[in-house]
Amino acid sequence: MTGARLSHLDAAGHAVMVDVSAKPDTRREAVAHGHVRMRPATLAMILSGDMPKGDVLATARIAGIMAAKKTSDLIPLCHPLAISSVKVDLAPDAAGAGIEITARVRTTGPTGVEMEALTAASVAALTLYDMCKAVERDMEIGQIHVIHKSGGASGTYDRAATP
Amino acid sequence: MTGARLSHLDAAGHAVMVDVSAKPDTRREAVAHGHVRMRPATLAMILSGDMPKGDVLATARIAGIMAAKKTSDLIPLCHPLAISSVKVDLAPDAAGAGIEITARVRTTGPTGVEMEALTAASVAALTLYDMCKAVERDMEIGQIHVIHKSGGASGTYDRAATP
Amino acid sequence: MTGARLSHLDAAGHAVMVDVSAKPDTRREAVAHGHVRMRPATLAMILSGDMPKGDVLATARIAGIMAAKKTSDLIPLCHPLAISSVKVDLAPDAAGAGIEITARVRTTGPTGVEMEALTAASVAALTLYDMCKAVERDMEIGQIHVIHKSGGASGTYDRAATP
Amino acid sequence: MTGARLSHLDAAGHAVMVDVSAKPDTRREAVAHGHVRMRPATLAMILSGDMPKGDVLATARIAGIMAAKKTSDLIPLCHPLAISSVKVDLAPDAAGAGIEITARVRTTGPTGVEMEALTAASVAALTLYDMCKAVERDMEIGQIHVIHKSGGASGTYDRAATP
Amino acid sequence: MTGARLSHLDAAGHAVMVDVSAKPDTRREAVAHGHVRMRPATLAMILSGDMPKGDVLATARIAGIMAAKKTSDLIPLCHPLAISSVKVDLAPDAAGAGIEITARVRTTGPTGVEMEALTAASVAALTLYDMCKAVERDMEIGQIHVIHKSGGASGTYDRAATP
Amino acid sequence: MTGARLSHLDAAGHAVMVDVSAKPDTRREAVAHGHVRMRPATLAMILSGDMPKGDVLATARIAGIMAAKKTSDLIPLCHPLAISSVKVDLAPDAAGAGIEITARVRTTGPTGVEMEALTAASVAALTLYDMCKAVERDMEIGQIHVIHKSGGASGTYDRAATP
Repeated sequence: MTGARLSHLDAAGHAVMVDVSAKPDTRREAVAHGHVRMRPATLAMILSGDMPKGDVLATARIAGIMAAKKTSDLIPLCHPLAISSVKVDLAPDAAGAGIEITARVRTTGPTGVEMEALTAASVAALTLYDMCKAVERDMEIGQIHVIHKSGGASGTYDRAATP
Repeated sequence: MTGARLSHLDAAGHAVMVDVSAKPDTRREAVAHGHVRMRPATLAMILSGDMPKGDVLATARIAGIMAAKKTSDLIPLCHPLAISSVKVDLAPDAAGAGIEITARVRTTGPTGVEMEALTAASVAALTLYDMCKAVERDMEIGQIHVIHKSGGASGTYDRAATP
Repeated sequence: MTGARLSHLDAAGHAVMVDVSAKPDTRREAVAHGHVRMRPATLAMILSGDMPKGDVLATARIAGIMAAKKTSDLIPLCHPLAISSVKVDLAPDAAGAGIEITARVRTTGPTGVEMEALTAASVAALTLYDMCKAVERDMEIGQIHVIHKSGGASGTYDRAATP
Repeated sequence: MTGARLSHLDAAGHAVMVDVSAKPDTRREAVAHGHVRMRPATLAMILSGDMPKGDVLATARIAGIMAAKKTSDLIPLCHPLAISSVKVDLAPDAAGAGIEITARVRTTGPTGVEMEALTAASVAALTLYDMCKAVERDMEIGQIHVIHKSGGASGTYDRAATP
Repeated sequence: MTGARLSHLDAAGHAVMVDVSAKPDTRREAVAHGHVRMRPATLAMILSGDMPKGDVLATARIAGIMAAKKTSDLIPLCHPLAISSVKVDLAPDAAGAGIEITARVRTTGPTGVEMEALTAASVAALTLYDMCKAVERDMEIGQIHVIHKSGGASGTYDRAATP
Repeated sequence: MTGARLSHLDAAGHAVMVDVSAKPDTRREAVAHGHVRMRPATLAMILSGDMPKGDVLATARIAGIMAAKKTSDLIPLCHPLAISSVKVDLAPDAAGAGIEITARVRTTGPTGVEMEALTAASVAALTLYDMCKAVERDMEIGQIHVIHKSGGASGTYDRAATP
C-alpha cells in the first residue's frame, strides 16, 4: 500500500468529504462484527429464565438497524447514502461469556457501507450495555471490525483470522 | 446483586423507558474508555510526517462530543438529558499499536451519563476508523468500557484493573 | 393473499430492513388521508374570525412536509429514500366537524412512499392538535389510511370506499 | 372556555413558541390512545402462528418510545423537554379487529406531555402499519386522542366516554 | 478583556464542551438580527400581488423556530438546553431592499442562548433564500449579529449602533 | 425574468416541496461564500499565539461539512439528496478583519446544491462565532451568497462582482 494516504484530508491536512461524484453506482455489501463481554449470570438474564428474552435482543437489533441509517449524521466525513438493507444478528458467544453481534448492510451507490455496518454493530452493543447495566457495570464492548466487504473499485475484502 | 433485574423491561418483559420522575437532580460524571488498534504505519500517518495531525484527531474529538449529545436519539431507552460538559481525549497507546480514547461527560440530572460517555468514545473510534480505512482495513475497535462513574443513588464506581 | 407473510421479519421472526438492492428504480406515488375531529367553535377559530388563519394551516402543512423527510428516522425498518415531492393539503371537512388532510408524496426509487405519505398526514394532524389544544382537549385524530399508491412491482392500489 | 384563543399565535397571527419561562417545574403525566384497524387474518399473523410475535410488537413499542423523544423535533412549536419515562402498550382490541395502543409519558417541567404521548401512539401505529402492509393495505389508524393528563396549572383532564 | 481566551479550547488547544455544571440556572434571553438583501421586485413578490404572502414568511418563521431547537445538534460545542420560547419576526426593511429578521430566544438554564437566536435568524434567512431563489440568485444574507443578551454571570449586553 | 414566480408555492400560495420526479440526474456543483467580521485581536487569537490554531478552524470546517448533510432537515422545502462531496475553506480576509468562508458542494441528482453550500457556510460561520464569543460579542456574520453554480437545466451561474 505504498503511497497510501489518509483520503479524508486535503493537501493542507484539512478534513474534507471526499468527492465521489465520478464514481459509478455499484452494488456493495459490508459485514461488521462486535461483541459485548459480560458475566454468565448477566448473559443468562438476557437469554432465559422467567424474563422473556424478546425485548432485550429485539431492542438491540432495532437500535442497530436505526443507527445504520444515521451513520452519515454521526461520522463527520461519511457520505449520506440510500441503504438497501440492514440485518443485525445477536447470539450468545461460544464461551458463554457474552453476545456476538453481526451487522450486514447493502447499498447500491458510489461508496461502501463499512461505516454503516460498524455503526450498526456499535450501537447494538451500546444498547445491550444500556439494558444490562443495572445488573453489571463491568461489561466491555470490543472486537468491532469489518469481516467482509464487497463491491466498488477496491474489490472484495475478507478479514483474516483474528491475530 | 441478588434480585437484580433488567431495569429496562417491565413485568411482562416489554421494553420501557424507566421512570426517573421521583429521582432528584444530582451532579453526575462518567468516564469511558475506548481503543482503536492499528498498525504502527497507520498510527504514524496520524501522528507525524508531513501530514498535519490536526484534523484527524480534531475530527474524532468533535465527532465524539457531538455523539454524546445524540445518545438518547441512538439508544432507545436512554433518557434525554442536559449535558453539562464533554471532553474527549485521544492519545497513542503505550505499545504504539493504536489510539486510546477517553471520554468524560458531566450532567446535573436524575440519571447517569455512562451511556453518553460510552457513545462519545464509540463514535470517536468509528470516526478514526473512517478516516484511516483507506490505508488499513484491519483496524479493530475495542476496550469500550466505563472507567469511572459518580453521583446518584448507586454511588461511585471505579473499574478494577482489566482482567 | 395465501402465503403472505410479514416481510419485515426474517425466518426467525427477527426484525430486518428488507433487501431492496435487486429492485429497479421506478417512479412511485402515494397519497394518504388523515382527519382531525374538533368542535365547530374550534374549527371556526382556525378558519375565520379576527385571527389570521395563515399560520395554523401553514404550520401544519410545513410540519407534514418536513415529517415526510424524517420517515426513515421514525419508522425503524423504513428505507431512506430521495423524496421527489411532497404536498400536504388541509381543508375543513364537509360536516364542519374537523380538518381533512391529504398528503401526496412522490419518489423515483426501489421502494414505495406510503409510509412517507402516512407520516406526513399524521404529523400534520398532530401539529393541528398542538396548535388548538389550548382551546379543546377532546380533538381526535383518525381516518389515517392510504388512498392511492402507484409504481413498483405491486402495481396500483386505490382504496375502496370507506366501510 | 370564553375568551380562549390559539396560544401558538401572537397578536398578528404569527406562529410562536409560547413563553414558558415564568412557569414552575411540576410533575406531569399524559396518556394517549391510538388504534390500528386491520383484518382478523392480519391480526392473527401478528399475534400467533409459527411467526414469533416478539419483534412486531417490540418494534412498534420501541418506535413509539423513540418518537416521544423526537416530539419537539417534529411538532414545530413544541418545547423540548426532559422526558422522565415513556411506556407504550400494545394489545389486540376486544373485537379482534385491530391493535389498541396506549402511550404514557411523564416529565418534570414547565409544560405538559400530551404531544409526546400522542406522538408515541401515532408512530407506534405507523410502525405497525409498516410491518403489516405487505399483507394488508387497507389498515386504518385512528382514535388517536388524549385519555388523561395531570400536572400543571390547567389541572387534571380525563376524557369522557367516546361519543 | 485582558487575559481573555477562547473558552472552547482546553490548555492543549483541543475543542471541549465547556463545563457548566457549577453554574446556576438563571433566566436568560438573547435577541439576534439577520437580513436578506434582494431586489425590490423579489421583495414585492413576497409581500404583495396576487400571490398570498402567508406561506413564504410563515415558512421562514417556522424554519427559524425549529432551527433554534436544533442548535446544539448543529454547533459542535453548544450545550443542549431546554428553550422556553422562540419568536422570529420578519419584516421588509426601511429601504425596500430586503427582509429584516429578528429572533428572540429565552431559557432558564446555566448557559446563554445567543447561539440559538443566531441560528434561528440564519435558518430563517436561508429559508427565504430557498423560497425566492427561482426568481433571484443574487440575494445576500448578512448582518447576522447579537442585538441583546441578558441573564447569567456576564450580565446584559446591548449592541452599539452598527459601525 | 418575466413570468417568474416563487416555485415553492402552489397556485393557492401554499408551501410545497416542488416535484422533481421528471428531472434527470445530472452532476451539479455550488460554491457559497460567508464571512465573520471580528476585531484584529480576536482574529489573532484564532490564527496565532501560543493557542494552537488547529481546533478552532477544524471545528468550524467539520461543523460546516456536517451541516451540509442536514440541509433538507433544516430548510423546510429542500429535497433530500445524496451529496457527493463537501469542502469548507476558512482563511483570514485580506483586510485582517475576519475570516472568509468558502463552501463547495457537489452532487449527482435532480436538484441543485446551492442551499447545501449556503448552509455549510452559515453553520461554519455560526461555529466560529460560538468559539470566539467569550472574547468578542460584536462579531458579525455576513456576505453569505452563492458564488457559483453549475449543472441542471438552469445552466451555469457566476456571481458578478459584489455591488
